[in-house]
Amino acid sequence: MQIVVAVDAMGGDKAPDEVVKGAAIAARDRRYRIILVGEENKLRECVASVPEASKLEIVPAPEVIDMGEAPAAAVRRKPKCSIVVAANLVKEGRAHAFVSAGNSGACMASAAIYLGLLDGVERPAIAAVLPTQRGKCVLVDSGAVVDCSAEMLLQFAVMGQAYARAVLKVSHPRVGILNIGEEASKGNNLTKAAAALLRSSPSVNFCGNVEGTGLYQGQADVVVCDGFVGNIVLKASEGLAEMLMWYLKESLKKSLLTRIGALCLRSAWRSLKPISDYAEHGGAPLLGVKGVCIIAHGRSNARAIANAIRAAGAAASANLVETVKKGLEESGLAGSYQVAPASDAGEG
Amino acid sequence: MQIVVAVDAMGGDKAPDEVVKGAAIAARDRRYRIILVGEENKLRECVASVPEASKLEIVPAPEVIDMGEAPAAAVRRKPKCSIVVAANLVKEGRAHAFVSAGNSGACMASAAIYLGLLDGVERPAIAAVLPTQRGKCVLVDSGAVVDCSAEMLLQFAVMGQAYARAVLKVSHPRVGILNIGEEASKGNNLTKAAAALLRSSPSVNFCGNVEGTGLYQGQADVVVCDGFVGNIVLKASEGLAEMLMWYLKESLKKSLLTRIGALCLRSAWRSLKPISDYAEHGGAPLLGVKGVCIIAHGRSNARAIANAIRAAGAAASANLVETVKKGLEESGLAGSYQVAPASDAGEG
Repeated sequence: MQIVVAVDAMGGDKAPDEVVKGAAIAARDRRYRIILVGEENKLRECVASVPEASKLEIVPAPEVIDMGEAPAAAVRRKPKCSIVVAANLVKEGRAHAFVSAGNSGACMASAAIYLGLLDGVERPAIAAVLPTQRGKCVLVDSGAVVDCSAEMLLQFAVMGQAYARAVLKVSHPRVGILNIGEEASKGNNLTKAAAALLRSSPSVNFCGNVEGTGLYQGQADVVVCDGFVGNIVLKASEGLAEMLMWYLKESLKKSLLTRIGALCLRSAWRSLKPISDYAEHGGAPLLGVKGVCIIAHGRSNARAIANAIRAAGAAASANLVETVKKGLEESGLAGSYQVAPASDAGEG
Repeated sequence: MQIVVAVDAMGGDKAPDEVVKGAAIAARDRRYRIILVGEENKLRECVASVPEASKLEIVPAPEVIDMGEAPAAAVRRKPKCSIVVAANLVKEGRAHAFVSAGNSGACMASAAIYLGLLDGVERPAIAAVLPTQRGKCVLVDSGAVVDCSAEMLLQFAVMGQAYARAVLKVSHPRVGILNIGEEASKGNNLTKAAAALLRSSPSVNFCGNVEGTGLYQGQADVVVCDGFVGNIVLKASEGLAEMLMWYLKESLKKSLLTRIGALCLRSAWRSLKPISDYAEHGGAPLLGVKGVCIIAHGRSNARAIANAIRAAGAAASANLVETVKKGLEESGLAGSYQVAPASDAGEG
């Protein structure tokens, strides 16, 4: 079966050009059918310039959300903006997933309002995948909910666990909580309360506190935290990796010997790229909504967009939404919490 | 004038051997006189094995704090443990500064209880120095206070600013707040309230929100955050740098060509080390106490200890405590807040 992915072609710093190029790269793979959503004339122009033009469908969306607008209000006021039209394609069953590199608040709000939340989910969470010394780690929440309750962290754990099982194919994911020490006595008010909840939940394979160092050592397959901390860890990691690469490049310029060395090391550099380069990771799924929604980096280039589309395809093929729903039901969470009014979504 | 530094010789994963070796390295510099504090017989033995033995003084401290003990209670119950004896050498004017790589909670508690807090300081904060693309950045708090108020973040800003001026010699430090977006509307409840306070404070040179990426790009000279976030950013950075170096080393093993490349690049590696290696940075000062206290990494080796002693010397020479005190007074903070009971200190 072909996976149909709706792409918000107007979202991101390099939209629509790089988004269309990225969609074209992904469209070379026959498993995907791609729908570009956005301003019709602009998109026709962009699509005409790529060799895969015949493989790209366009669905018009005349409205545009500005960076300054409050996300939840904007997506309600502009139902014909690209991000809402893309979300609605998923809702109407015309696409299996949607991808956006636009305003992440607007993306979350569109998903929460138009797709709706799964039963038992107070707030959807972003699940970013980080590389570790032992493989991969899912960090939930990576920036959706900045002020969390302990109960929300439990929901993130259950959803992250389902994602690790379904998409990353980890059969018994170990779930940890991001904290400032390994001992149970460590932490702030939130993590102490959440750790107690996680420890007593029979459906979570809880392995305890994970420190910042432990995150990259691969101490857990799923690490929960509030979206404020998650976003800062993610962006600080990106900044540090960029800085280290920059320093290394600067010092390579210094002598002929180091330049020869750098030449010999080209393949090693390449193997490092997937670890330090956000574009390799594509996008992060928003967990807890009734449909597959992939949030891509605002700075996404064509390669990052292509990878985000592949991430959407993988999530849809793995029945991510059904798996998360089942996880919430089996944990007894479904039905036990009030669903927050959708207008609260997308504050970050 | 010689700077006298008291070193808790029993603190840290590699104590006392590496601590004594580190003290010996630092003692080669005649500007420092070093007092080792700890179990007398053990220290005599260690000191006898280093060539700089004659330059190292020993002050006995028979009691030991265990990792499991509650820090504040332990330092009250054991006034003859090495960390308390070292703090008291500063209090009594027999040393200009003290250094410890031991339990950081016990270190903070010793400083808060035995040295006391400066007027206007609710809780002392750890000021770690990070490398950036433009130089250095002071991250306050890096792990002392895990649940902060907006007022505390303002105090951290004033103290961090004083530290950047006095020790890092930045004449007009730009102060930012660690946040999830650059726009003023972004953040969690704490950062929104703290940013408003910082913006309205005439004595803080506030430059707005700094994202995780901006931290390493050098957008500010001082970045404030609560100790939970600061500790996690610091440790995640350490973990990521270790992981990147590990990946690179692994990929270098793969072929003769990459091995030749690595050989040519040896000097470039070395220039990268100070950036990725915690041992280069030595320790972080605890700001807000009435004396210079440097908290070193628990994993400190001899080189890290030597650098922590140098950091203590630099802080003492720069009159750090007086500068912080003056900063608090000039900001109108001194006297305006109640000093918290010392038993609350060192919870982290």
